[in-house]
Amino acid sequence: MSAPTLADILAAHARIAPFVHRTPVMTCATIDALVGARVHFKCENLQKVGAFKYRGATNAVQSLDDATAALGVTTHSSGNHAQALALAARVRGIPATIVMPRTAPAVKRAAVEGYGAIVVTCEPTLAAREDTLREAVARTGAHVVHPYNDPRVIAGQGTAALELLADVPGLDVVMTPVGGGGLLSGTAIAVTESSPGIRVLAAEPLGADDAARSLATGTIQPSVNPTTICDGLLTSLGTLTFRIIRQRVERIVTVSDDAVIEAMRLVWERMKLVVEPSGVVCLAALLEKRREVPGERIGVILSGGNVDLAKLPWA
Amino acid sequence: MSAPTLADILAAHARIAPFVHRTPVMTCATIDALVGARVHFKCENLQKVGAFKYRGATNAVQSLDDATAALGVTTHSSGNHAQALALAARVRGIPATIVMPRTAPAVKRAAVEGYGAIVVTCEPTLAAREDTLREAVARTGAHVVHPYNDPRVIAGQGTAALELLADVPGLDVVMTPVGGGGLLSGTAIAVTESSPGIRVLAAEPLGADDAARSLATGTIQPSVNPTTICDGLLTSLGTLTFRIIRQRVERIVTVSDDAVIEAMRLVWERMKLVVEPSGVVCLAALLEKRREVPGERIGVILSGGNVDLAKLPWA
Repeated sequence: MSAPTLADILAAHARIAPFVHRTPVMTCATIDALVGARVHFKCENLQKVGAFKYRGATNAVQSLDDATAALGVTTHSSGNHAQALALAARVRGIPATIVMPRTAPAVKRAAVEGYGAIVVTCEPTLAAREDTLREAVARTGAHVVHPYNDPRVIAGQGTAALELLADVPGLDVVMTPVGGGGLLSGTAIAVTESSPGIRVLAAEPLGADDAARSLATGTIQPSVNPTTICDGLLTSLGTLTFRIIRQRVERIVTVSDDAVIEAMRLVWERMKLVVEPSGVVCLAALLEKRREVPGERIGVILSGGNVDLAKLPWA
Repeated sequence: MSAPTLADILAAHARIAPFVHRTPVMTCATIDALVGARVHFKCENLQKVGAFKYRGATNAVQSLDDATAALGVTTHSSGNHAQALALAARVRGIPATIVMPRTAPAVKRAAVEGYGAIVVTCEPTLAAREDTLREAVARTGAHVVHPYNDPRVIAGQGTAALELLADVPGLDVVMTPVGGGGLLSGTAIAVTESSPGIRVLAAEPLGADDAARSLATGTIQPSVNPTTICDGLLTSLGTLTFRIIRQRVERIVTVSDDAVIEAMRLVWERMKLVVEPSGVVCLAALLEKRREVPGERIGVILSGGNVDLAKLPWA
């Protein structure tokens, strides 16, 4: 697999524009004062399905030729990628089969089914998920869309940064969360290729710091028994995303869950935005470890807003 | 007092533009499907201080001549107008004195003080509030900015509708919540003067239906012991706002608190926006009493997002 180029991200942007929201960029004077810098938030929590994942899924689905698309798409995911792929398939009018662990919350399963996808459950192990996915492919001929280790998905995720750069000239830094690395690697290509002066950083929870350890050791470190409130950032990097991140990302800042909860509450209270814990790790880094982030004008991607309103961390 | 004209609202828009957010207009496919119409939400919960009130307060404060402004401004309010006037005064660099009942939540008092205003507390009766306000004026010479029964405030509130009409051509209806009537009367002037084909409607909670009763009887009905979750819609209409509303507003739809809570949860879950109960009465009307609202393209003002995150109605 080769990494997508800036041209691929520009093409993805044109391809998905009719299907995705051009999300707003917002600022907050109170947060700027707390951080000591001007922070521009790209609000992907306001994206369809409530997360940037819809960009990558839409780019992958819309890139398929008609014959391939007709057989449908499939993936294993219990998170935002599952919903994103389900809706992207419905918009194209093709079937989607989503493999989910039987332990996934009922509300997530219902959301995926609400978008018209078929859900196949399996035991909550990686081996069971991969086996079940293989069976689904064998049965249906569906095309697999990986949540992050796929050049079309990475190119789609990179389109959020393109819009951020267009809307806010003169940034010093762009930051994203990092889980599997799809958003971070797409952002890194978009930013470093189009604007070489802007640095790309990332943030992840201390309890799932495999990406920081991977950068430090130079080899992909598996995410083993991660413990964090950031349920969207539990996976390990992929081979392709790691290669891109190693080449283009300056630093991965790790943050405590306490800082994540504080950042989340700030965004809800002061910006009036519903964001999920995984979505605010960058703000948490700016609040907790400002010295590790250079620059006075900082672009941050608020990656998602899918959260159980009945279980808020400050309740 | 004479009602502001469309020209006054246009002038207010130019006057306050450097100080207020031009808030986005958002849509949600899920909500459209539930309502059976295309609903365009003007997101004043994303306005500074979290509510449209900042428009009217800013217009009033920025309209003062320097000599008057130098003595400061004052009002009695425990709600969003208090915060709005406090920040508008700070932005102009003049003092603000806010009279609040001693029963006001500590968090609201802290917010007002956080904007640099002096808070004077009094007993929680209208007589005590008015007496204390008179004392503040006698002591400081400050200029009183009423929360709604003031042409400059009404003109400022009308600017949100101007932006909505500019951003969304072809609306059939514009709806706002109604409490004291500042937002509704400003909106009604802006809409009916600039776009005579568009109808203006409002919504209010059944437990505080004084505005609907005022329209029905032709005289201002006091709001006596209102009981509703919509804490921003408890006041009675003013003489000026009633006159405008009677002339220009087609109907006031009343909604149950259950419908308000359902609407609020929908906006949080599907639009990822933090809105307060008072802010979603129009959506509640669309969900509960769709037959009372004509039209296929409906503009709605989401009026505010100031809510205690530790006390959510579904928790």
